[in-house]
Amino acid sequence: MPEMFQVLPPANALKLICDHLPSNIRIEELPTAEALDRVLAEKLTAATSLPSFPRSTMDGYAVRAADTFGASESLPAYLSVIGEVTMGQASQLSIDTAQAAIAYTGAMIPSGADAVVMIERTQKLDDTNIEVLRAVAPGENIINIGEDVKEGADLLDAGHILRPQDIGGLMALGITRVKVAAKPRVAIISTGDEVISPESTPGPGQIRDVNTYTIAGLVARAGGIPLPQGIVRDDYDALVSSASASLDAADVLVISAGSSVSTRDLSADVLNSLGQPGVMVHGVSVKPGKPTILGVCNGKPVLGLPGNPASAMVVAGLFLVPLIRRIQGVVRAPAGQRVTARLSYNISSVPGREDYVQVRLVERDDQLWAEPVFGKSNLIYSLVKSDGMIRVPLDSSGVHKGELVEIELF
Amino acid sequence: MPEMFQVLPPANALKLICDHLPSNIRIEELPTAEALDRVLAEKLTAATSLPSFPRSTMDGYAVRAADTFGASESLPAYLSVIGEVTMGQASQLSIDTAQAAIAYTGAMIPSGADAVVMIERTQKLDDTNIEVLRAVAPGENIINIGEDVKEGADLLDAGHILRPQDIGGLMALGITRVKVAAKPRVAIISTGDEVISPESTPGPGQIRDVNTYTIAGLVARAGGIPLPQGIVRDDYDALVSSASASLDAADVLVISAGSSVSTRDLSADVLNSLGQPGVMVHGVSVKPGKPTILGVCNGKPVLGLPGNPASAMVVAGLFLVPLIRRIQGVVRAPAGQRVTARLSYNISSVPGREDYVQVRLVERDDQLWAEPVFGKSNLIYSLVKSDGMIRVPLDSSGVHKGELVEIELF
Repeated sequence: MPEMFQVLPPANALKLICDHLPSNIRIEELPTAEALDRVLAEKLTAATSLPSFPRSTMDGYAVRAADTFGASESLPAYLSVIGEVTMGQASQLSIDTAQAAIAYTGAMIPSGADAVVMIERTQKLDDTNIEVLRAVAPGENIINIGEDVKEGADLLDAGHILRPQDIGGLMALGITRVKVAAKPRVAIISTGDEVISPESTPGPGQIRDVNTYTIAGLVARAGGIPLPQGIVRDDYDALVSSASASLDAADVLVISAGSSVSTRDLSADVLNSLGQPGVMVHGVSVKPGKPTILGVCNGKPVLGLPGNPASAMVVAGLFLVPLIRRIQGVVRAPAGQRVTARLSYNISSVPGREDYVQVRLVERDDQLWAEPVFGKSNLIYSLVKSDGMIRVPLDSSGVHKGELVEIELF
Repeated sequence: MPEMFQVLPPANALKLICDHLPSNIRIEELPTAEALDRVLAEKLTAATSLPSFPRSTMDGYAVRAADTFGASESLPAYLSVIGEVTMGQASQLSIDTAQAAIAYTGAMIPSGADAVVMIERTQKLDDTNIEVLRAVAPGENIINIGEDVKEGADLLDAGHILRPQDIGGLMALGITRVKVAAKPRVAIISTGDEVISPESTPGPGQIRDVNTYTIAGLVARAGGIPLPQGIVRDDYDALVSSASASLDAADVLVISAGSSVSTRDLSADVLNSLGQPGVMVHGVSVKPGKPTILGVCNGKPVLGLPGNPASAMVVAGLFLVPLIRRIQGVVRAPAGQRVTARLSYNISSVPGREDYVQVRLVERDDQLWAEPVFGKSNLIYSLVKSDGMIRVPLDSSGVHKGELVEIELF
């Protein structure tokens, strides 16, 4: 019973699915302080300049720079101190020729002054007079109006993932609410007559559900909301009914199918029943994970993942994670956590197929080594014992022992 | 007014603080399915073997391997098919000499059988008889009892950060609840008479609070619970009262101080009033971030961060993030998100000081370039415009244009 697989390279398969998704984004408005790691759904510009007044960047004296020209340790400039700038207020002081005012870091520069002399470059003569031991240029030790951001400037584009400093930067300009993409809801169905809930004790021939939980974890880390739908029997009607209800309530549907040919065919039939165009990819050139089914049903992506835990995780990383980002309009995907290490064994591969090899990282002889964790893709603990994966590219026939490889940590 | 700074390298400063923290961990029990990214607080072992029965890894026929020895395309072995193993059940079938049973991927191997022949290596003769075209060895295409995990085996150690596959692995063994470290509560106080809430419109000399939000974001990403305490005036009594109440309700206290010498001294005095031993580090050899104050007060870390946004972020990354992990008992810190790129400008540094230089990543000539974002550490938008930081080590005098550098993304 050989199948007619139209096996596609992973990148082509992903593009095909993305090309069939609608481009509109579900948007919600949130307090900016709660928008960390969310995807911005609007382009933001600065309504005002930042800072809105000139500020001192040093503890020192606000002066007229011209009064210090030529000043040195041997020939200091003499200035009279007319007061101190109060923090957080516009100073009433006005600096005239040969005058100075104490200005701490962050203080507003009083009118008339155009530079700040660091306190370390001055010497007190008495209560009101100082010597300046080095000249300052106009603007020195001052942040000018709009030096951080100019009024009207572009701040952040739609599709940007908000980081801690972005939240801080928006708050600095009083942008306390933002429009972001709603988190994609990802329904997860586990199938298989042998699969039971982890709460139950397996009888002979039964195993506890694993994939619902590894996939839910990947979804949460990618910024989606996992919606586990429980375990459904390998029965067309039961599966169609559950899948259809799940897809209605979600933005993405993942069916973690059994690995036998019959359950794969069942997944494909179910997927085709859910909406147009249905199954678009039946098989991808990746190991583990070849028997992957991808489709779009009425504008929503539906993924049929292989049942083996390692295959399910590789395939979810290759397709589900990018799709969750795509749905939110992410422009530039965040880099994964990566390290470079030396490979400790030869890995052979087949050109025309992307291989993902699990590795453990070990320090030895002051070097970081990547040790392949050889294990059938049916085993969940080979993933637990691994620190990450090496990707052997589509056109490669393998990687040699001792070569430097990049490991995508998980 | 020069200060007596005991300036320490960052690593030494962190170790000093860690050495003065208690080793006990606040523990809570959670459903395993809700424990993603939490730190395990107990060592886990397997109560049962996984799988608990031998399973087929292929779609095919369960056989006695000896019956297939010598089989080839030209000289096949003849077996009679006595039935099919039902998924999720102990099969009543027992395989005798020259017998076989249909067994799909994941099916329990029936008694008597010790191998599975892939369906592709067989040929159907009639309704009950098949030819086997290639020999299988005993155990071939079977996962044995305990091949994933053996009963009694160590699974995960205390201090491990739970990943998606770990959650799946624990569920596979029926470990549906786990003890994890409680998330550290991090109180954040922003000080400065010029600082106002982002909701307000700044008057002359006033700026909106930034650091509360960048620090809260870093805390959340590191697995802590940020507890923003609002803005407190630069007044000893007000600050002591707020800091003391905040520290009581939290596991860590962060005071984002002004950057002037006077407010730094104020932070140190406040910190010393909160408990023993008080201030332990006054200044670290890092740029930006030198005027950092670190202490331990009655067993809890207290950090006085410089007020400049870039300094506050570097220092929070160097000390606050590792401390949040340390408090949870993390054994091996997760790797940051890193990329390698070519530096586009010379960066000079001073030996004896760690420098952190903000960079933007740009693709040019098919290469990734790291372009330093030169900007005063007072500017929040130089951080917003950056993709990450380069660390220039303590003993380096700089990095040359064109050199490959590692960028820690943020």
